[in-house]
Amino acid sequence: MYDLIILGGGPAGYNAAERAGHAGLKTLVIEERALGGVCLNEGCIPTKTLLYSAKIYDYAKHGEDYGVKFDSAAIDHAFVVERKNKVVKQLVSGVGAKLKKSGVEVVKATAQIKERNAEGFVVTAEGKDYVGKQLLICTGSSPALPPIDGLADSVKSGFALTNREVLDLKELPKTIVIVGGGVIGLEMASYFNSVGSKVYVVEMMDHIAGAVDREISAMLQKDYAARGVEFILGAKVTSIKDKAVTYEKDGKSTVLPCDYALVSIGRRPRTAGLGCENIGLKLERGAIVTNELGKTNVPGVWAAGDVNGKSMLAHTAYREGEVCINNILGKKDRINYNSIPAVIYTNPEVASVGETSESIKEKGLDASVQTVTLKYSGRYIAENEHGNGVVKIITDNKHHNIIGLHMIGSYASEIIYGAAMMVETEMRVADIQKLVFPHPTVCEVIREAMFM
Amino acid sequence: MYDLIILGGGPAGYNAAERAGHAGLKTLVIEERALGGVCLNEGCIPTKTLLYSAKIYDYAKHGEDYGVKFDSAAIDHAFVVERKNKVVKQLVSGVGAKLKKSGVEVVKATAQIKERNAEGFVVTAEGKDYVGKQLLICTGSSPALPPIDGLADSVKSGFALTNREVLDLKELPKTIVIVGGGVIGLEMASYFNSVGSKVYVVEMMDHIAGAVDREISAMLQKDYAARGVEFILGAKVTSIKDKAVTYEKDGKSTVLPCDYALVSIGRRPRTAGLGCENIGLKLERGAIVTNELGKTNVPGVWAAGDVNGKSMLAHTAYREGEVCINNILGKKDRINYNSIPAVIYTNPEVASVGETSESIKEKGLDASVQTVTLKYSGRYIAENEHGNGVVKIITDNKHHNIIGLHMIGSYASEIIYGAAMMVETEMRVADIQKLVFPHPTVCEVIREAMFM
Repeated sequence: MYDLIILGGGPAGYNAAERAGHAGLKTLVIEERALGGVCLNEGCIPTKTLLYSAKIYDYAKHGEDYGVKFDSAAIDHAFVVERKNKVVKQLVSGVGAKLKKSGVEVVKATAQIKERNAEGFVVTAEGKDYVGKQLLICTGSSPALPPIDGLADSVKSGFALTNREVLDLKELPKTIVIVGGGVIGLEMASYFNSVGSKVYVVEMMDHIAGAVDREISAMLQKDYAARGVEFILGAKVTSIKDKAVTYEKDGKSTVLPCDYALVSIGRRPRTAGLGCENIGLKLERGAIVTNELGKTNVPGVWAAGDVNGKSMLAHTAYREGEVCINNILGKKDRINYNSIPAVIYTNPEVASVGETSESIKEKGLDASVQTVTLKYSGRYIAENEHGNGVVKIITDNKHHNIIGLHMIGSYASEIIYGAAMMVETEMRVADIQKLVFPHPTVCEVIREAMFM
Repeated sequence: MYDLIILGGGPAGYNAAERAGHAGLKTLVIEERALGGVCLNEGCIPTKTLLYSAKIYDYAKHGEDYGVKFDSAAIDHAFVVERKNKVVKQLVSGVGAKLKKSGVEVVKATAQIKERNAEGFVVTAEGKDYVGKQLLICTGSSPALPPIDGLADSVKSGFALTNREVLDLKELPKTIVIVGGGVIGLEMASYFNSVGSKVYVVEMMDHIAGAVDREISAMLQKDYAARGVEFILGAKVTSIKDKAVTYEKDGKSTVLPCDYALVSIGRRPRTAGLGCENIGLKLERGAIVTNELGKTNVPGVWAAGDVNGKSMLAHTAYREGEVCINNILGKKDRINYNSIPAVIYTNPEVASVGETSESIKEKGLDASVQTVTLKYSGRYIAENEHGNGVVKIITDNKHHNIIGLHMIGSYASEIIYGAAMMVETEMRVADIQKLVFPHPTVCEVIREAMFM
């Protein structure tokens, strides 16, 4: 008998488990694969490991601009993948150690919700029943694999890859077609472009990077196009087979031969086979329906992370898990989805939080949009020959507070949390004017923009 | 007749001039050298340009750890200096353009305050008198050059360098002795160490990096010592001549032969020859005395930047200049010196804001100190083989707000502004727990620390 059973040991689950264990709840985590979930094993962390090696290689290629000359530079992809595995292993074992330290039990098994009884919720995992007074579902998401001609077989044969397999390629493809120009697709496009593969990105929409501010996603696209990535937008993929990806655009069908196809067209909440129906859990398009407190329609059952289909970001999952635990512990807490930052770890990096030029129009908000070049930063100029990064700031016209901030350029990933803080605390232009930002930094362009 | 005459076109002066011009004040800036001051011409920006090239070179040296192999890498110091000059030129002309756009007049001349008359303050510059209703003094600082045996002659002969000359060395020294282990000394030690010079740092105190949190400065020292920089602490330099620096330590005298000596033992406010006495301006140890509003003892005369001897940082100067202009314009404003961040652009970077372990003891504050390894960050692990960075957080025990934050590790320079925001807005631990930081980042360790 547990106070809390958590299904899934990814960012939502392991973080919630740690907080719950700390707070004294008798907590069980059931995870069928490795602790850390997609983020740690097949997502955020492995990609960042690869991208960092690619960045070092990029530095070498552009070193001459900065007075550093290299006779020859080469990237050892197999080593990079091996190192990635080492980094992942270290972090996974770190998560295990944290859970142990917090007194959380971990069972490695596939779990199914069996029923609700007088004691609580019964979960079956490999033949054994576990009972928890409350249940927190953090089963995450899987790559969407729609019924495209040949896709299922190509996944089996290893020609079509998802975020999982692409990270373990033993050798570099000469040509790779990336189906889907969202975050995962773009980060992998960046890696393969840096290390010398020919990269195609085929995207159904007329722009890349999903909900990212359109001006900024266009800049990113232009940047990568100049480096040789071919973007095919407004195209529908009709088959993935026979070492080729076929797409239709403007009524015309084109075949792109390639060594591999990476399918990164979105992710679906993992609820199939979970037994949601056994306790009457409400789903919508496969996602568990939750409110801002993380509550589902069944009292005592909570859900956090990708499985609720809301934000599909590891850091949202962390916070959602914490909100659930706080509410379970009787502390009032709710998540504010408006101030969640997002990052694309391309080179240059893209980071954003809050409203965009597009969203203020859609919502009819009275807001101003200001785009400021990062060339106002001496550091940016010192470190970026040919750089053309910007920060774009969305300000509410009535209260003069920052409601959105978007960046493309160096350090954007590490700068955006401060902007999220501005959005969350409804900081006004006049407040930011009185803050002192360190000089010379890239972030100080945010402050400078407050005077324009 | 001007509304405002600003003496000095460095960070305090040019920024204040721009704000004043914008606000409609008829403004004159008198600068004897290039616009941008020490920061832009001989400080922050040139050093960052050099350090960025060194960083790229460092990446090459450690590339193998990340799967990137280089046959040979070389740094072209002369090119790096040339590029530095180009960057500085671009930024100086940018400052000029901004001032022009704001309608500010600029005179290139050495200025002296002549007198106060019925109309305002009379300033003489190269034979011509200018009258301003108000006066803002932003003449900055010069390197301290104490009466060490041989120093004056060595500066003349070019053997002893200050921050100005060291940035224009045509060739790399085999051996350089850096007298003074403060920010300038450490950044230049970092550069020369990266590019292959033998570097000695001789410091009078028993620690480097001045007021930086002692635990962090010790980590920085250890790091550079492992890379071959020799630190000689608690040592008094007795002569700088004959291609050698001589110091006394523990009663023993040692001679360090070297190609150059960099003297970076502090900076002195530039008030000599300025004519402060002609209007009765109050000085203390050569610095113009100001209050939090930027006011001097003479009504209508303001001072900002290094010349007030307070913080000696470019970003403090910006803000001080703005505070003066706001008060001149009748808008209430004051500067809070407690929330000013500071950065050392070594590799790893060091950044800090607010109280330190040492300062809370000195002040008798009831506060907690927490040191958290950056290894909690997956990104940090992905990007730092052998890294041992930390973030150190000082929390007030009564109100549970953040009163200090110190970091050593990647991206510290661009992360610290958010911490300054936390200190300035008196953010509490519970507030930061509810913020969402992007994952995977180094900054998210700050959030994680809030749960420990």
